[in-house]
Amino acid sequence: MDLNLMRELSVVTDSKIVLLVLDGLGGLPMDPYGRTELEAANSPNLDALATRSDLGLSRPVAAGISPGSGPGHLALFGYDPLKYEVGRGVLSALGIGFELGENDLAARVNFATKDESGRISDRRAGRIANEQAAKLVELLNENLRLDGAEVFVTHEKEHRAVAVFRGTGLSDALSDSDPQRVGLEPLPVEPTNGDADSERSAELANTFIAEADSILADHHPANTVLLRGFGMHPALPNFDEVYKLRAAAIASYPMYKGLARLAGMEVLKEGEGIAGEFATLEANWDSYDFFFIHIKGTDAAGEDGDPGRKAAVIEEVDALVPDLLDLGPAALAVTGDHSTPAKMKSHSWHGVPFLLSSEYTLPTAESFGERACAGGSLGAFPAEEIMGLLMGHALKLNRYGA
Amino acid sequence: MDLNLMRELSVVTDSKIVLLVLDGLGGLPMDPYGRTELEAANSPNLDALATRSDLGLSRPVAAGISPGSGPGHLALFGYDPLKYEVGRGVLSALGIGFELGENDLAARVNFATKDESGRISDRRAGRIANEQAAKLVELLNENLRLDGAEVFVTHEKEHRAVAVFRGTGLSDALSDSDPQRVGLEPLPVEPTNGDADSERSAELANTFIAEADSILADHHPANTVLLRGFGMHPALPNFDEVYKLRAAAIASYPMYKGLARLAGMEVLKEGEGIAGEFATLEANWDSYDFFFIHIKGTDAAGEDGDPGRKAAVIEEVDALVPDLLDLGPAALAVTGDHSTPAKMKSHSWHGVPFLLSSEYTLPTAESFGERACAGGSLGAFPAEEIMGLLMGHALKLNRYGA
Repeated sequence: MDLNLMRELSVVTDSKIVLLVLDGLGGLPMDPYGRTELEAANSPNLDALATRSDLGLSRPVAAGISPGSGPGHLALFGYDPLKYEVGRGVLSALGIGFELGENDLAARVNFATKDESGRISDRRAGRIANEQAAKLVELLNENLRLDGAEVFVTHEKEHRAVAVFRGTGLSDALSDSDPQRVGLEPLPVEPTNGDADSERSAELANTFIAEADSILADHHPANTVLLRGFGMHPALPNFDEVYKLRAAAIASYPMYKGLARLAGMEVLKEGEGIAGEFATLEANWDSYDFFFIHIKGTDAAGEDGDPGRKAAVIEEVDALVPDLLDLGPAALAVTGDHSTPAKMKSHSWHGVPFLLSSEYTLPTAESFGERACAGGSLGAFPAEEIMGLLMGHALKLNRYGA
Repeated sequence: MDLNLMRELSVVTDSKIVLLVLDGLGGLPMDPYGRTELEAANSPNLDALATRSDLGLSRPVAAGISPGSGPGHLALFGYDPLKYEVGRGVLSALGIGFELGENDLAARVNFATKDESGRISDRRAGRIANEQAAKLVELLNENLRLDGAEVFVTHEKEHRAVAVFRGTGLSDALSDSDPQRVGLEPLPVEPTNGDADSERSAELANTFIAEADSILADHHPANTVLLRGFGMHPALPNFDEVYKLRAAAIASYPMYKGLARLAGMEVLKEGEGIAGEFATLEANWDSYDFFFIHIKGTDAAGEDGDPGRKAAVIEEVDALVPDLLDLGPAALAVTGDHSTPAKMKSHSWHGVPFLLSSEYTLPTAESFGERACAGGSLGAFPAEEIMGLLMGHALKLNRYGA
């Protein structure tokens, strides 16, 4: 979407926007003549809402492309996911709740095993136990010092951790140290462009690895670390600056809180479970113009290949829809950040069902489902346009041109 | 649309194209379960035509964006409305029928009241009567001379007029003199970029204001003028050059004639009312390859919030469709430049119903309406593509590539 157009035309009003994201909402029939998870779900409230809503199928990134959580959400927030990249290191840092600063450089850390010849014999250090890994992380934080940058190591799970380098003039134009196969020596981290920042950052990363090697020397099998997925804060345009919205995020998983924070949303302390998230929405209704609510369970059930559980999560959300409508949003979108068909047990490229409820809709169907959306008045459209649609329907955009 | 592709592939043939624009055609149901203006209209001829036409919903500018008449028509003519901007001063000049030259700089003029301290006490000079304002415009035209540029002032309505500066090296990169609020001094017109043209143009504008002040000194409350909305001819690619079409425009309002003239169309003298416009089409059928016919009444009724009157205008057009078809256009589009739902009493961002009749269509519906178009073979698509579709259906485009 043309963010400059949004900057130019957006105005502050009292109307409220809600973007309700059921992660991985889109699905497929398990067999060609069956129903999708959303079509099969017993969701009378969403169906009733669909009869007075605009419907369509949104495309997160590009035809045939299955998006990760980063690009999926960036598109929902109106940012071109091919322009604004969120590195894996950054996503890992967000995923563990690390509040990444604008100049921080993040990387994924794997504890690994190096043999006497200096070659990597296990890229996961025998899938070291959580407790043991956490102790090693502590050891690194206590003993590892770099010249000209702070470094924070945070444990993620088993052999996985995240390192965040904090300083000025850092760059993520860096290659991985992970050789990807056992029997090879770890690679030196190298600058992938020739500027001074990336050369200095490569030096910092290599020093980090050398220091870690000496700190971990006696901790076989976790006697070294591999670094990969270097990334920096993507410096997303701010929701307030682009859309003139006081935006709040309600999510139960750190990664989605982190993505929302990258866009300048305030992350609200959420209640327990889905009902708790909706309660948080209600409690904060008067304080913001825009709410992003993230529901994780649909994606998790899809990844597990469990269409029934995915439908059950949709039904749990459905039961809370009347309370949400009672709050009186001027524009409400119900959609996903991508599809996660239980049939595929993974994220997919398929169009994501999209429902937009407002006073100004052209309803076309009797229910909310992928096929109802396929015939909707919005057609198949890029997810990047969702924010423009919401802003328009909430009457928060001036006319373009005379 | 890629105009270079059109330049490369377009060929001259005998086939004729008609672009019939019902301004603000798109609508909404007044209540969620009702019908739109177009759906409710008794339009048997358009419905019959729909059964043998391609249908779709066109998007004038971008998701959620309500276009003005300028961008709406530019898109219909195949020009990117975000690239080619038509300034407000230009639209005003077109609106009063001023034939704007390629180097002309236009601005809106408001007669206003300045108090003894030099502050604006009324931005509309007490909404001065038309007759009195017309006399003051005459006074300005008789007495106001600028070094190095001609200037033409034309009265619009009440306190509003248009000034057109004609010369070489003019620029519209200028700020307004209107302070927007009473109690403030008028602002000097300032160049908004540093080039010589804009500096010189700012000087001309400020001299214009100073001269006008002395000419109007004794004409309280209209003792000064405020200038705003500076704009120049947008230098649109010419229809003849891009599409190789001898293009004619038939419209009853000056602004639409002006927009057509910007694109290089010849403006035909139209007959009285809608029937008169169609009679003009028939009378000139043999002399042109392309006809743009503009019907204003649908938009006006939508702006007035009158769905019945909007439907009645559609019905009046519908009755003339058989005569139009008898002329034998190779490709006929029936659409709008944007939506103006009576429910909203304003232009809106909603998809615009689009019908394309030719020998080579894939019909999908039994009637012409927003929901029939939502399920059409063209889907939801950018209005900028309409000219390409018409050229293709009229067999005026060579194959691309071997």
